[in-house]
Amino acid sequence: MKEVQKINASVTPKGSLEILSQIEVEKLKKVGENGLYALFRQCALAILNTGSDSDNAKDIMEAYPDFEIEIIQQDRGMRLNLINAPANAFVDGVMIASSREMLFSAMRDIVYSEAEKRSTRIDLNSSAGITDHVFHLLRNADVLNAGEPPNMVVCWGGHSIPEEEYQYTKEVGHSMGLRGLDICTGCGPGVMKGPMKGATIAHAKQKITNSRFLGLTEPGIIAAEAPNPIVNELVILPDIEKRLEAFVRVGHGITIFPGGAGTAEEFLYLLGILLAPENKELPFPLVLTGPKCAEEYFRVLHDFINDTLGFEAQQKYKIVIDDPEQVAQIMAQGVKDVMAYRIEHHDAFYFNWMLKIHEDFQKPFEPTHENVAALNLSSNLPAHELAANLRRAFSAIVAGNVKESGIRAIEKHGPYKIDGDQSIMKPLDKLLCGFVEQQRMKLPGTQYIPCYELIK
Amino acid sequence: MKEVQKINASVTPKGSLEILSQIEVEKLKKVGENGLYALFRQCALAILNTGSDSDNAKDIMEAYPDFEIEIIQQDRGMRLNLINAPANAFVDGVMIASSREMLFSAMRDIVYSEAEKRSTRIDLNSSAGITDHVFHLLRNADVLNAGEPPNMVVCWGGHSIPEEEYQYTKEVGHSMGLRGLDICTGCGPGVMKGPMKGATIAHAKQKITNSRFLGLTEPGIIAAEAPNPIVNELVILPDIEKRLEAFVRVGHGITIFPGGAGTAEEFLYLLGILLAPENKELPFPLVLTGPKCAEEYFRVLHDFINDTLGFEAQQKYKIVIDDPEQVAQIMAQGVKDVMAYRIEHHDAFYFNWMLKIHEDFQKPFEPTHENVAALNLSSNLPAHELAANLRRAFSAIVAGNVKESGIRAIEKHGPYKIDGDQSIMKPLDKLLCGFVEQQRMKLPGTQYIPCYELIK
Amino acid sequence: MKEVQKINASVTPKGSLEILSQIEVEKLKKVGENGLYALFRQCALAILNTGSDSDNAKDIMEAYPDFEIEIIQQDRGMRLNLINAPANAFVDGVMIASSREMLFSAMRDIVYSEAEKRSTRIDLNSSAGITDHVFHLLRNADVLNAGEPPNMVVCWGGHSIPEEEYQYTKEVGHSMGLRGLDICTGCGPGVMKGPMKGATIAHAKQKITNSRFLGLTEPGIIAAEAPNPIVNELVILPDIEKRLEAFVRVGHGITIFPGGAGTAEEFLYLLGILLAPENKELPFPLVLTGPKCAEEYFRVLHDFINDTLGFEAQQKYKIVIDDPEQVAQIMAQGVKDVMAYRIEHHDAFYFNWMLKIHEDFQKPFEPTHENVAALNLSSNLPAHELAANLRRAFSAIVAGNVKESGIRAIEKHGPYKIDGDQSIMKPLDKLLCGFVEQQRMKLPGTQYIPCYELIK
Amino acid sequence: MKEVQKINASVTPKGSLEILSQIEVEKLKKVGENGLYALFRQCALAILNTGSDSDNAKDIMEAYPDFEIEIIQQDRGMRLNLINAPANAFVDGVMIASSREMLFSAMRDIVYSEAEKRSTRIDLNSSAGITDHVFHLLRNADVLNAGEPPNMVVCWGGHSIPEEEYQYTKEVGHSMGLRGLDICTGCGPGVMKGPMKGATIAHAKQKITNSRFLGLTEPGIIAAEAPNPIVNELVILPDIEKRLEAFVRVGHGITIFPGGAGTAEEFLYLLGILLAPENKELPFPLVLTGPKCAEEYFRVLHDFINDTLGFEAQQKYKIVIDDPEQVAQIMAQGVKDVMAYRIEHHDAFYFNWMLKIHEDFQKPFEPTHENVAALNLSSNLPAHELAANLRRAFSAIVAGNVKESGIRAIEKHGPYKIDGDQSIMKPLDKLLCGFVEQQRMKLPGTQYIPCYELIK
Repeated sequence: MKEVQKINASVTPKGSLEILSQIEVEKLKKVGENGLYALFRQCALAILNTGSDSDNAKDIMEAYPDFEIEIIQQDRGMRLNLINAPANAFVDGVMIASSREMLFSAMRDIVYSEAEKRSTRIDLNSSAGITDHVFHLLRNADVLNAGEPPNMVVCWGGHSIPEEEYQYTKEVGHSMGLRGLDICTGCGPGVMKGPMKGATIAHAKQKITNSRFLGLTEPGIIAAEAPNPIVNELVILPDIEKRLEAFVRVGHGITIFPGGAGTAEEFLYLLGILLAPENKELPFPLVLTGPKCAEEYFRVLHDFINDTLGFEAQQKYKIVIDDPEQVAQIMAQGVKDVMAYRIEHHDAFYFNWMLKIHEDFQKPFEPTHENVAALNLSSNLPAHELAANLRRAFSAIVAGNVKESGIRAIEKHGPYKIDGDQSIMKPLDKLLCGFVEQQRMKLPGTQYIPCYELIK
Repeated sequence: MKEVQKINASVTPKGSLEILSQIEVEKLKKVGENGLYALFRQCALAILNTGSDSDNAKDIMEAYPDFEIEIIQQDRGMRLNLINAPANAFVDGVMIASSREMLFSAMRDIVYSEAEKRSTRIDLNSSAGITDHVFHLLRNADVLNAGEPPNMVVCWGGHSIPEEEYQYTKEVGHSMGLRGLDICTGCGPGVMKGPMKGATIAHAKQKITNSRFLGLTEPGIIAAEAPNPIVNELVILPDIEKRLEAFVRVGHGITIFPGGAGTAEEFLYLLGILLAPENKELPFPLVLTGPKCAEEYFRVLHDFINDTLGFEAQQKYKIVIDDPEQVAQIMAQGVKDVMAYRIEHHDAFYFNWMLKIHEDFQKPFEPTHENVAALNLSSNLPAHELAANLRRAFSAIVAGNVKESGIRAIEKHGPYKIDGDQSIMKPLDKLLCGFVEQQRMKLPGTQYIPCYELIK
Repeated sequence: MKEVQKINASVTPKGSLEILSQIEVEKLKKVGENGLYALFRQCALAILNTGSDSDNAKDIMEAYPDFEIEIIQQDRGMRLNLINAPANAFVDGVMIASSREMLFSAMRDIVYSEAEKRSTRIDLNSSAGITDHVFHLLRNADVLNAGEPPNMVVCWGGHSIPEEEYQYTKEVGHSMGLRGLDICTGCGPGVMKGPMKGATIAHAKQKITNSRFLGLTEPGIIAAEAPNPIVNELVILPDIEKRLEAFVRVGHGITIFPGGAGTAEEFLYLLGILLAPENKELPFPLVLTGPKCAEEYFRVLHDFINDTLGFEAQQKYKIVIDDPEQVAQIMAQGVKDVMAYRIEHHDAFYFNWMLKIHEDFQKPFEPTHENVAALNLSSNLPAHELAANLRRAFSAIVAGNVKESGIRAIEKHGPYKIDGDQSIMKPLDKLLCGFVEQQRMKLPGTQYIPCYELIK
Repeated sequence: MKEVQKINASVTPKGSLEILSQIEVEKLKKVGENGLYALFRQCALAILNTGSDSDNAKDIMEAYPDFEIEIIQQDRGMRLNLINAPANAFVDGVMIASSREMLFSAMRDIVYSEAEKRSTRIDLNSSAGITDHVFHLLRNADVLNAGEPPNMVVCWGGHSIPEEEYQYTKEVGHSMGLRGLDICTGCGPGVMKGPMKGATIAHAKQKITNSRFLGLTEPGIIAAEAPNPIVNELVILPDIEKRLEAFVRVGHGITIFPGGAGTAEEFLYLLGILLAPENKELPFPLVLTGPKCAEEYFRVLHDFINDTLGFEAQQKYKIVIDDPEQVAQIMAQGVKDVMAYRIEHHDAFYFNWMLKIHEDFQKPFEPTHENVAALNLSSNLPAHELAANLRRAFSAIVAGNVKESGIRAIEKHGPYKIDGDQSIMKPLDKLLCGFVEQQRMKLPGTQYIPCYELIK
């Protein structure tokens, strides 16, 4: 890692002015148990680190050991004094407006999540309670807009992809933007940035001034995938399960670009849900797409689905190679179908209440070595249950690759052991080897040491 | 009461679109214990009854026994179906936009208050906890605007006043509006409407398009003082103590017009707080004003303060007779002083954190016959404690006059008995007799039967 | 006239920032022939004199002989330095925003009218050319809004009316405002202010933030009828004929309240146009209305129409006594009919191109004693021609009453002599005597000396 | 040229709704003498042809011989029916909003320019009169914003440049956009598009929602340089001299990227003006910049200036190679200096009144063979006069390369003959040869046949 540049600055929010009560400020300042300072500092560091080349959360944290935040309550609201902050988010000493807003969004979400945990209003152990919790987090972040027709397309895919694939994501974003579609991603670089960039240009051409570029992230991942500054609405969900639920409840359609383990996790999560009998009739546009050079990638993935979840699962998505216009047209038509269905069934445009998500997709999966080893990967399971378990396996791999806690666990206990029916392990092995070969596991130029071992 | 006109209608909010979770909707629909339907129905009825001649909450409730609300969740948010609703809030069958918004504000506050009660986040028995609670209610209602300089003038006074006094409140509002001041009142008719009306015209002349006309009410009083439709921000606080705290924390200055028992309650509450040693240095512009014909009223009140709380209390306010310009100039200068003080002491513009409110002003006073009888009205008490107890006596009188629960209690147990030092009881008797003579206890034309008895 | 208060101030426009070329600034500064300074000074004085008690233009001009305007071009646009200006339009030394904008509107219209006169683009002697000219003046003033559905109601009537009638105009304005209607008037006090005031309150209730209160005036009349500050769009048309054409082309319906000679002029102008065979099918809502006490006034006027223009003319309007709701409902329905007609005939919402206005209504009538004496008031004329000539007679009376040039002409040559068939002169005499008796010719409290003489 | 796709569509403007009088509509529809239809059709075709590969105006015109426009006046304003229109500007059959607005901007400018020509208000033969005319055209197009501080950077350079140079213009635009600068160009592709694209992304990051991307073009050039749809304000000036004056009066600084003859024309025009003694003190930031590969280009240009206009001229600009940040920092500081100077000298932010432009830079130069042959290119001339004549020589070359009239003249009379002192002709020859070699005269892939001949 090159030498880091640091800056001191004092910032106030622009636009939506966040205000806190004195008690909330105290909690945010508090270091140690029950205090929120460490969590806020970590998210703030990730936000300020925008544009960084590293995706190793640990490295980033260690590069700025003396970074500090002072939280000041003053006449017109909150002020944050940043000490020894990364210089990336500043232009001639002034913080980029978007990064400035994200800082305050992080503050808002961290304070609110804490308050929600203290409420006895809902039962966080029930499926309905978890969904209600996700709803409250999103509503509090002001991303549920009742007045707007469905037009939010979620884009999933790798944060580290080859230039050709990146250019392609920009073109798809441009084609979608020309059709008035908004973009939601995991808010980092790569696939999480390209479609937003393309759509920004397209929205300018279409004179759309209320563009939404929604980024959904989580404390454990934000450092590895620093939010790109085109994101204009940022929400930090507490964990990957809440984040995934947020994606599928606020998105009106999903486009998947090439990616690595994280992308596979997202894809399996979604397939598992769409395969649930309750969701059989629900329209949910899902396209897998990439440039010509990514054709092989999708072929392998498509085979993997065939070998594990079967033909029915393949009917839930469409693969489009090297045709941004067609992707955009499918999505534009898809969100219209979603709109018609919601109107017919009196469901909200801004939150997909009708989508059934079973508890095994909602409950946090703690990727301990023990839990990973215990995963049931049997071909006898119903497709949506097998999908849930495969999802968990990939969740563990993501943790081992980029999450601070996961990296530390691997350092201590060695790679995760994943076991199951050979009819599943073989295709899985093939898929994972492909990811490694195509350098989809880590940023190119770094040597990938697998954090998992498949039992054969 | 004349025959009532009823209407059926289906309404959605305009502007700030409220959205609820499915669990919140269920709770709102629920009748009986733990359900919020009865409370919402009562507030909605009050809002729809805008412009009514009656201030007897019980009469109003009884006039629309078959009024119902259906709460519907749909594509673009919430819809309310109103059945057998009062026709007052409709023009050619279409609901007035302002009343429509108030309905959804009431819904928002009722749902949020309930959720707050379920939170273990704060201790509602501590002074800081109560203040935090008031802050959260106001923030959730989106009335704390961090960006604005102080300019909110609270106007207190009677909901039922003679025409000449009403015209005067309009003139004062006009003079304040020409100086860019916003208005906050208890949101009913009379003094709660006049200044807003005058300021509306003045803001039009000054091309002010973000006028704020803030109404703070409570479930127990809203029916007796139906919100006037100029109010463009409505908040329903749970009880009179939270409401009074909200007034003094969001207002940057207060103007008191002639009124009855409610006005006296508010005046004593504020004096009691300003007399607390901790608030000695705090600038808080306070003007008592009325037209020529109200001079006697203020003379009696001024004497009452002298006789009970003393000279120091008199220094906390200024009386201005028949001079709207002067009132507005004092307020305009006063809010500038407040601004300078807050900047100097790093206090928020939007919430008066520095104002110390002792617990005896915050804790709800239940106006039972027992509690009223037990009030300590002794001249030996420190001024701010005596003020607190006098405030409670007036709170009971208001309840007995217009609140449903109070009216029923009086029907059952006869008038409240109020006892204390004769050096206090005598001036109090004089003040109350004056209120009755001047018809400030009830709407003119109705015969006032006192709900209290002073022990001599 | 009471002693006048004067003030010096320096103002820039708020909102729509007018900018001028250097050549335009020079012309505006220029005193004497070809210069526009005198005209601008006169209009500015009238605007600053808002709220004045006098309607005698000459008096006003003479009260501020040392009033001056400096026009400064600077970085952010124009600045006006006002020296010895009337203090009416200032609050604590700061100019009311509305008056400030009007100053710049006057500047804009005076510069543009001058430029238009220099153009050979159109033939100001042809009917189409005059209409084109009116269109260009209105478009340049930015009052033709293509996007809005028809909702502009013109209110005509006296600038000096009894309190009861004034209150009534507020109520009508309130009822119209509740139905979303905008108001256009001649922009002075009395009937020109009341409906705007009522509608301002109603629009606040309906949360309408783009209210339009359009004032159309002319340099010769502006001093006598100083613009009221609720007007938020002001246009100064060159003469009464252009102004009347502007009223009937931008208004979608017209309400006439009691007034004097000016109101009669407007009423006859409109009747004459609506009686033209080409306009037979055109929907044009026209209501005459007043409180109970004005019933006699309308009875006399109705008789006068019967006696001169006949039964057909009476079918063009509806008289409503003491029922603001009904007036508003007729207008609300009327503008809907206008909208349907325009859509059907592909005419613009913002300009009534289809209304035929004959040249004799468009050509300026110079109210010299000679021209007045030569008016043909014969019962043999077609109704719309007779209406045109009666209109001119009233135009002369208005000039003799309040316009500076007219007042000077009467001072020099004595009253105008008006002659015609006795079948017309008798009803005319009756009508005029009524106006005098009802004090509709001059501000109450002043003694009216007729500026005309009817030849019997 | 590949086969063209055509489409029929009916469009109304979005946003600023243009409205025309009936007389204006008639003139716009009129074919033949005094009619504006042919001119409007030509500009509309160019706008619709956005994104085309050709820069030959004649080819474009000939590719759509059956393109037609119907102009319809209707209820909500204007509607244009397009018949056999190029399909480029449509997405799924719907016209891109930006192109739609440009159509109406063209309509507005054509109608207004015609009206201005008919005015006797100003003397178009005087320098002040021409400047006044340019001011009026810009003001009517609503691009003079009085409220904004100086931040408009003009970018000049080629419409046909290598990919590396194009990417560089995007980076410079991005760096300028991050500093809040707006962009003005000739509105075509290449250098006219890249900086706008970069700034669009940067403005999104800075949450700037009122971005200005101003395109200034002329009827003779628009077809060769079809407006790119990021342009959000388009003005069509009547000829190149008015257009150049518009650039230097609305721009607060100028950045020149590599280009061909047109760029040289612009550069010489600006140098000639800045060398005028009257402009000696005036701050006018001017940077020439390009990526590493363009270093040679600027070295040759810098030498040419040295050899012809001399050392003083070289002091008027700064050359920056491969450093977008530095370019943006110079411009950001430069516009601040401009602001300070304008405030000090009371000049407008929105129009550079103080810049002296001599008549020989303002008068249209008709590039006939005769006029070109007569150009005085002598080293005895003062630098600013020589610059004026060199500018004209390049103006002729541009016409011969891409303007329809110029191309036809060359077809008829052969290449222009340019003569002058050899001390000037030799550097000129070197410069032009360089342009040809670097393929800066025509789109790459086409064979360039010089439209000029230097007399040796």
